[in-house]
Amino acid sequence: MRTEFRLSGSGGQGLLLAGIVLAEAAILEDKNAVQTQSYGPEARGGASKAEVVISAEDIDYPKATDPDYLLALTPESYKTYGALMGKGTIIVDASVPLSADIKARTLSVPILKTASEDLGKKVVANIVALGVLAGVSGIVGEKTLELAVKNRVPKGTEDLNISALRKGFELAARANA
Amino acid sequence: MRTEFRLSGSGGQGLLLAGIVLAEAAILEDKNAVQTQSYGPEARGGASKAEVVISAEDIDYPKATDPDYLLALTPESYKTYGALMGKGTIIVDASVPLSADIKARTLSVPILKTASEDLGKKVVANIVALGVLAGVSGIVGEKTLELAVKNRVPKGTEDLNISALRKGFELAARANA
Repeated sequence: MRTEFRLSGSGGQGLLLAGIVLAEAAILEDKNAVQTQSYGPEARGGASKAEVVISAEDIDYPKATDPDYLLALTPESYKTYGALMGKGTIIVDASVPLSADIKARTLSVPILKTASEDLGKKVVANIVALGVLAGVSGIVGEKTLELAVKNRVPKGTEDLNISALRKGFELAARANA
Repeated sequence: MRTEFRLSGSGGQGLLLAGIVLAEAAILEDKNAVQTQSYGPEARGGASKAEVVISAEDIDYPKATDPDYLLALTPESYKTYGALMGKGTIIVDASVPLSADIKARTLSVPILKTASEDLGKKVVANIVALGVLAGVSGIVGEKTLELAVKNRVPKGTEDLNISALRKGFELAARANA
């Protein structure tokens, strides 16, 4: 009943916001959710990690211990957190070279390229990634997520971000096929 | 070495942002920080709770277990979380009636009134509160916090939010005196 997400990449990629939106979408569907952002030596090196735990029941321990889904947008985050993956699925940006040492189920998805080329704004890569995560995991519905995105993104950027979310769901449908 | 903050009030008061800014200021001063936002049945009732744990060392458990500082901006959050306070200090909005049943050290501070009347914008109550928390706790310096506020608030609102932060530090100086 408990699903754990770890979102990793570099600072400035907006993964904290993606985590907040995912958590809020979950509660719109009457689940419980905890969103955590850790800062420390690794954050100072430009790395970023946000986690979301979603459950139909109370959440005692708020951190991901054995993530069901890892998002990795950079080679560094793929190496660091990919190596820790057991049962779960890795969603890694297609720009990142895959490693034979990382054995977990892996979907390589062009998230950064879709943001910068199809949508023309690399800053929406976080919302593209959110659509991919939601589509692959099936944790929340697309309409719910649209509502949560609209609630949280800066005013005036709603349409762009909704387009980004839809692109993410499309990428997920292709990756899952 | 570990300092725990719990920020509570109602949804829409921006306490998640206040928690994020506090955590970011701490890492600018080379500390470790974890920021957590829990969503669930209570969030659906309009309540909001954000937590920040700051430490010079690694943070194993990311949630507040015995908060050093509780911020409570509503009667409901004061009653719910004030009753759980042990060693720590409660910073409660001056609009909230105090209860003799809540025994922890308590500072009653006009946070909401300062935001709506002195600054003319009740939405900056979260940043006023942040200044109060930082001033009372001494956890981060005012200049560091200014930097973190500027990094995180919406563009165009920096000056208003810096004014709010300063008002918060002034309120803290008065409350501590």
